[in-house]
Amino acid sequence: MVDFELIRELANKTDTKIVQLVLDGLGGLPSPVTGKTELGTAHTPNFDQLAKEGICGLSDPVNPGITPGSGPGHLSLFGYDPIKYQVGRGVLEALGMDFELIKGDVAARCNYCTVNENGIITDRRAGRIASEINAGLCEKLKGIEIEGIQLFIMPGKEHRFAVVFRGEGLKGTVNDTDPQNIGVKPKEAKSRSAEGKKLADAVNEFASQARSILKDSHPANMILFRGVSQRPDLPLMSDVFKLNPAAIATYPMYRGLSRLVGMQVLNTGTTFEDELNTLEENWSGYDFFYVHVKQTDSSGEDGDFDRKVKVIEEVDSLLPRLIDLKPDVLLVTGDHSTPAIVKGHSWHPVPLLLKSEYCGSDSASEFSELACITGGLGRIRAVDMMPLAMANALKLSKFGA
Amino acid sequence: MVDFELIRELANKTDTKIVQLVLDGLGGLPSPVTGKTELGTAHTPNFDQLAKEGICGLSDPVNPGITPGSGPGHLSLFGYDPIKYQVGRGVLEALGMDFELIKGDVAARCNYCTVNENGIITDRRAGRIASEINAGLCEKLKGIEIEGIQLFIMPGKEHRFAVVFRGEGLKGTVNDTDPQNIGVKPKEAKSRSAEGKKLADAVNEFASQARSILKDSHPANMILFRGVSQRPDLPLMSDVFKLNPAAIATYPMYRGLSRLVGMQVLNTGTTFEDELNTLEENWSGYDFFYVHVKQTDSSGEDGDFDRKVKVIEEVDSLLPRLIDLKPDVLLVTGDHSTPAIVKGHSWHPVPLLLKSEYCGSDSASEFSELACITGGLGRIRAVDMMPLAMANALKLSKFGA
Repeated sequence: MVDFELIRELANKTDTKIVQLVLDGLGGLPSPVTGKTELGTAHTPNFDQLAKEGICGLSDPVNPGITPGSGPGHLSLFGYDPIKYQVGRGVLEALGMDFELIKGDVAARCNYCTVNENGIITDRRAGRIASEINAGLCEKLKGIEIEGIQLFIMPGKEHRFAVVFRGEGLKGTVNDTDPQNIGVKPKEAKSRSAEGKKLADAVNEFASQARSILKDSHPANMILFRGVSQRPDLPLMSDVFKLNPAAIATYPMYRGLSRLVGMQVLNTGTTFEDELNTLEENWSGYDFFYVHVKQTDSSGEDGDFDRKVKVIEEVDSLLPRLIDLKPDVLLVTGDHSTPAIVKGHSWHPVPLLLKSEYCGSDSASEFSELACITGGLGRIRAVDMMPLAMANALKLSKFGA
Repeated sequence: MVDFELIRELANKTDTKIVQLVLDGLGGLPSPVTGKTELGTAHTPNFDQLAKEGICGLSDPVNPGITPGSGPGHLSLFGYDPIKYQVGRGVLEALGMDFELIKGDVAARCNYCTVNENGIITDRRAGRIASEINAGLCEKLKGIEIEGIQLFIMPGKEHRFAVVFRGEGLKGTVNDTDPQNIGVKPKEAKSRSAEGKKLADAVNEFASQARSILKDSHPANMILFRGVSQRPDLPLMSDVFKLNPAAIATYPMYRGLSRLVGMQVLNTGTTFEDELNTLEENWSGYDFFYVHVKQTDSSGEDGDFDRKVKVIEEVDSLLPRLIDLKPDVLLVTGDHSTPAIVKGHSWHPVPLLLKSEYCGSDSASEFSELACITGGLGRIRAVDMMPLAMANALKLSKFGA
C-alpha cells in the first residue's frame, strides 16, 4: 500500500510537470480473428515512439482478478488505495450528474417505482417512464421539505434520479429501501449505527412525502433509494503529493472524481482536441494534469472493436501537441481494461507507458499489451503509479539517510 | 511484508551457506551516448556466466518510486521491512563513525555554529571550521558531565560531530535544536512524550554546558543538535532466520547496520580483495555472509559512469575466488540504484542475480538491467530476498500441511 505518511514526508513542490493521460478502459483482449488486441491493432506511430524512448509495463487497478468500476479505477490512478478509500454508488451518481458535492453531503440513487393501493411494489422501475416525465416528477418532488436539511433532486434517464441531502449531522450509511423484489413493500431505511439515525429519518421522511406527492402519478407513484452514501473525505493531492493538480475531462463523473481528491477541474469541450486546447491554455498554471479520454471505454463496452481501435488512433494522431508541451513526466495508461470481446470492464492489467528523462529503458518498441508484458516497469499496482511519476519528476526526497 | 512470525516458525538451522554480495548503488541508467547502463557496459564474464546458470530479476528496495537511503536500503536486503524498522539519522551517523551502539543508546548529529552576544545564530556551520579545530573542540566538550549519563563525543569533518548518550531511561525522541535558520536562537529540545523528558533534559544540559565551554572559541562558540534518535531494537537475524551471520564491509556505516541486526562484523581491509581474504578465512565459521562493495555507489554519486563500470569489472574479475568457495546460495544485488546520470541514489529497481542448485532458470544470458527485466525472479520487493535465499538454501520448512 502506498503509505501517505511517507509520501507526505518525502514530497516536494517543484517546477516539473506531470501529465497523466488516461484512455478509459484502454486494455483489451485479442480479436479471435486477428489475434491482436485493440491497442495492438491500432496504428499508433506516436505512442510507439514514446514506447521506444520510454518504459512500459502493466498495472493492476486493484488486485489480480478484480474488475474495478470507474471509482476504484481512478482513485488508484490518483494514488489512493481503492479498498481503503471507497466511493459510494450514490456519490458516483451525483458526480456523474456534475453535482458539486461538498464535505458531509449524502447522495443516493433513486428509482421511480409502482406500488398498489396497499403499498406493495408491482414494478421496481415504474414501467421505465420517459425521461421527460421523470423530469416533471422531479420538479414536483422539489416541494419536499425536511427541517435542517437542504435537498437537491436531479432527474436522470427513464426512471432514475438522484437526491443529495445536505445538512449538519448526516452520518453513517443506511440500507437500500429497494427490496430488489416485487410483491413486497419498500423497506424502511435504517442505520447500522446510532449516529446514522438522522440520515435514516431523513431518507424515510423523503420517501413518505414523495409517496404523498406522487400518489396520482401512476405508474411512477413511489420511489426507492439505493446506494445512499456520504461524500468521502479524502486527503487532498495538494496535501499528500504537494501538487497543484488539474483535471481535463469531458464526462462529469471523471470531473467529480477529480474534485474528490482536490484537483482543479478545468472547463473544456467534448473532444480530445478540446482537451488539448485546454491543456495548452492552462499549461503554466499547474504541475499535474489528468487528461481523460472516455471513448476507448464506451466503444469497448459496446463491443465495438474497430471503433475502439479508431479512438486510440485518433488520440495518437493528436499526441504530438501534448508531447510538444514537453512534460517532465508523461504517463499513458487506463483506469482498467474494457476489452471489446468482454463488452464491459475487466480485470486484465492495463498497459502503461512512462516517459521522462530518468525513466530508463527496456526493449518495448511499440505500445501494446504484448510489449508491455516484457516492459521495464514490470507489473505494478496502479496505486504505485503516482509515487513513480513523482520520482521521475524529481519530486520525492530520499527516504532515510 | 515479510512476516517474521512465519519465518521464525519455518526457519531451520542447516549446514548450507548463503553469500549476499551487495554492490552498493548497483542499478544504473543508460548513458545518453551509448544507451547502455553501467552494468550493461561493464565486461563481466563471470557475472554473465552466473546469470546463465542462475536466475535474474529486479528488486524494489522500498516501494516503486521511493529512493532509499543506505539505512532502509540495507534493512530491506537483510529482510527487515524498512518502513516498520527505521534507523534514525543520529544513529546512522554514529554507525558511520564505527561507534558500537548498544541497546538504549541515543545518538545525535551535531554542528558547531556561531552565535552572537545575545545567543542569536549568525552561522549554522561556524564558517565550516577545519576538521582539526573540530577535533580539538570535541576534546574540550569531553569535559561535559551529566549525572547518570555516559557521553561519547566523536569529531567528524569540518563543523560536524556526533554525540552518543548512554544511560538508563533515555527514551522517545526530541526535536532538532537546529532551527534551520540564522537570526534566531537555537531551539530548546523537547520531547513529544512524557517518557522523553530525561532525554530532552540531557540534550539541553549538554547544549548549555557546551555554550560555556565554547564561549571563547568563536566562530565555533555553540552547537546544534539534529536527528537525535535511539538505536532501534531490531529482532536479530539469529532469532528470525536461525542464521549465524557475518558481515564483511570496508565502510563503518555498513558494519554498523550489520551489527543492528546481530551480524558478527569481521575485521577486513579496504579492498574487495581484502574482503575475499576475510571471507575465505572465515568460511567455516558462519552460514550467512554479507559482503559489501562501496565504490559502485560512490562512483555513481560522483556521476562517474566510467569509474562505476570499472568497479563492477574489478569485482567481476575477482569473483572466481568467491565462486570457488561453492556457496549453496549466491545472491548478487545492490541496496538501491545510483545511476551516474542521477549523481545520487535513485528509485529505480535493482538488478538481482540468484544462483543455487534449486534456483530454476530463465533466458537471461548476461547480468544487466535489460536482462533482469525479463528474468525469472520477476520484480520483487527487496525484503523478500532473504526468504528467497533461505528457501534456496533449503532452510525453510513447508508452511502448513
